[in-house]
Amino acid sequence: MTIHDLARAADVSVSTVSKALNDNGRMALDTRERIKRIAREIGFRPNALAKGLLSNRSLTVGLLTNDTYGRFTLPVMAGISEALVDHGVSVFLCAIEDDPALGKIHVDAMLDKQVDGIIATGKRIDRSLPVDLTRLPVPVVYAFTQGEPNSVTLTSDDGHGAALATEWLRKLGRRRLVHVTGPSDFVSVRERAAAFRELAGSDARVLNGAWSEAWGHEAVAALWSSGDAKPDGIFCGNDQIARGVVDALRERGVAVPENVSVIGFDNWEIVAAQTRPPLTTIDMNLKELGREAGLTVLALAEGKNVEPGLRRLPCKLVVRQSCGGDGQPL
Amino acid sequence: MTIHDLARAADVSVSTVSKALNDNGRMALDTRERIKRIAREIGFRPNALAKGLLSNRSLTVGLLTNDTYGRFTLPVMAGISEALVDHGVSVFLCAIEDDPALGKIHVDAMLDKQVDGIIATGKRIDRSLPVDLTRLPVPVVYAFTQGEPNSVTLTSDDGHGAALATEWLRKLGRRRLVHVTGPSDFVSVRERAAAFRELAGSDARVLNGAWSEAWGHEAVAALWSSGDAKPDGIFCGNDQIARGVVDALRERGVAVPENVSVIGFDNWEIVAAQTRPPLTTIDMNLKELGREAGLTVLALAEGKNVEPGLRRLPCKLVVRQSCGGDGQPL
Repeated sequence: MTIHDLARAADVSVSTVSKALNDNGRMALDTRERIKRIAREIGFRPNALAKGLLSNRSLTVGLLTNDTYGRFTLPVMAGISEALVDHGVSVFLCAIEDDPALGKIHVDAMLDKQVDGIIATGKRIDRSLPVDLTRLPVPVVYAFTQGEPNSVTLTSDDGHGAALATEWLRKLGRRRLVHVTGPSDFVSVRERAAAFRELAGSDARVLNGAWSEAWGHEAVAALWSSGDAKPDGIFCGNDQIARGVVDALRERGVAVPENVSVIGFDNWEIVAAQTRPPLTTIDMNLKELGREAGLTVLALAEGKNVEPGLRRLPCKLVVRQSCGGDGQPL
Repeated sequence: MTIHDLARAADVSVSTVSKALNDNGRMALDTRERIKRIAREIGFRPNALAKGLLSNRSLTVGLLTNDTYGRFTLPVMAGISEALVDHGVSVFLCAIEDDPALGKIHVDAMLDKQVDGIIATGKRIDRSLPVDLTRLPVPVVYAFTQGEPNSVTLTSDDGHGAALATEWLRKLGRRRLVHVTGPSDFVSVRERAAAFRELAGSDARVLNGAWSEAWGHEAVAALWSSGDAKPDGIFCGNDQIARGVVDALRERGVAVPENVSVIGFDNWEIVAAQTRPPLTTIDMNLKELGREAGLTVLALAEGKNVEPGLRRLPCKLVVRQSCGGDGQPL
């Protein structure tokens, strides 16, 4: 029985419950009495989190990241904030570099400020933050970074995203598919390539390079100068590569999407929407990942039981114009 | 006399001073005695901040922003962190939306967590955050957002940046200059345009549009379809517009930088470095702005006197290839 359950039972906000039980705030006397009566009836006993709320202590969740560019962290943070602000919880982001000593200073600062939980996030899912978050006095949730064994870890399902992209190309009738992606030391690159080959055929080509527009240009130059059959569908490992591919094709006079469909990955608005034509791409749902992470750390802080382990959240297809199939004829 | 002065006088770190005066930590007995003696000799009296350090309380600065995209805030935050981490200070970022009620929740949370100071930052210098930061019990510094009257406010010097850009084009021999920029309701747009006209001539054309690549394409189409003399130097209001201009010129067969020099504004790596050719541009020194803001809020927290008012920090020119003058012949 949490303070949220009590708020639901009384059909008022958590803040109103808090004020009623603390005999402060302005409200009708019968509202206050009704809430206290329901609290007695349901045998409400505040847990640590509710005691914080009841004492009008501010609730805060600390968000740790080493993604100083913010590409992945800011959508995650927006999702956490959205999920928690209704609960009166603020999110404090602390950027740690790759120096463990500095990381420890920042974690100590968060604990000293009595955050109610910590969410760790990063820039790739197969690296952990350079700081030890085991044995902390507050719950920890890992989101889009590698968690400790037996931790609660949320991440995007790269295989699912790659399958969505490949299926979309096949649904549009594309059969000569190529995957132009990032460096193969990324787990996400290997998982996406495996899912791509599962659907496109085990002999479908996968080209690895840098996460850059320049690599997209190079890959097109290599594909179009080789004697092999030219692809009619290109699945790119991120939107920057896809932008390079689309520009390189246009400059060769190859029409996108009429002759070749190109699909990206990330749905990074600044790149995807500015490409000509705008990119159809895969969205990793990082904001939703943040929402889930926020609600999970809140549940843990409320003393609820959360099954440890890795949860992979699905991606979604975002249709713009670079594949066709957007209502425009191919 | 601050704890930092004492640390300097004793030639040890602030942390060592703290441990010596608290009789904790591991250090040679004579080091401890020497520090205590110097403290007595110089009449050291800890102020609020030093008391925090001496009590081993974690020091934190809260950073408030409504720039949820992070374009401007993350460099500012990196600068604050760099400046303060040596002082054992952590920076907590809290993103507020444009809802004053939510803003107040987050500010209250920061105060409740006893941050030692607050830095307010945003996404444009002529708008204030939707939250009242006057009469707080901790010092407040405004950086790259509009401050309250009589506050300490740091911002970039847009006029200086525009002058750097225009002078660079003129130094390269460009005489038919055009400024393609953002919407004129931005103070920064008006200040840059004024500085541009000061150097390029009062009849030099200024074209206002959106902050987008698409506007760069449109502006080139308009300039090249008119009967007027074609420009040989284009100063763009941001790097996205500049990228659109460069792409549009290439597609018309106009060589950049051989026929036309193009300069951007922002030095947003993801755009500037990927443009072909890479953009020469103006960097607003946001990291340096963050450094200054961090040191200023620390000085205020230490009880030092800081002159209120607006301080404009200089920009810098970053030379890549889109103007020529990079060692490559024009």
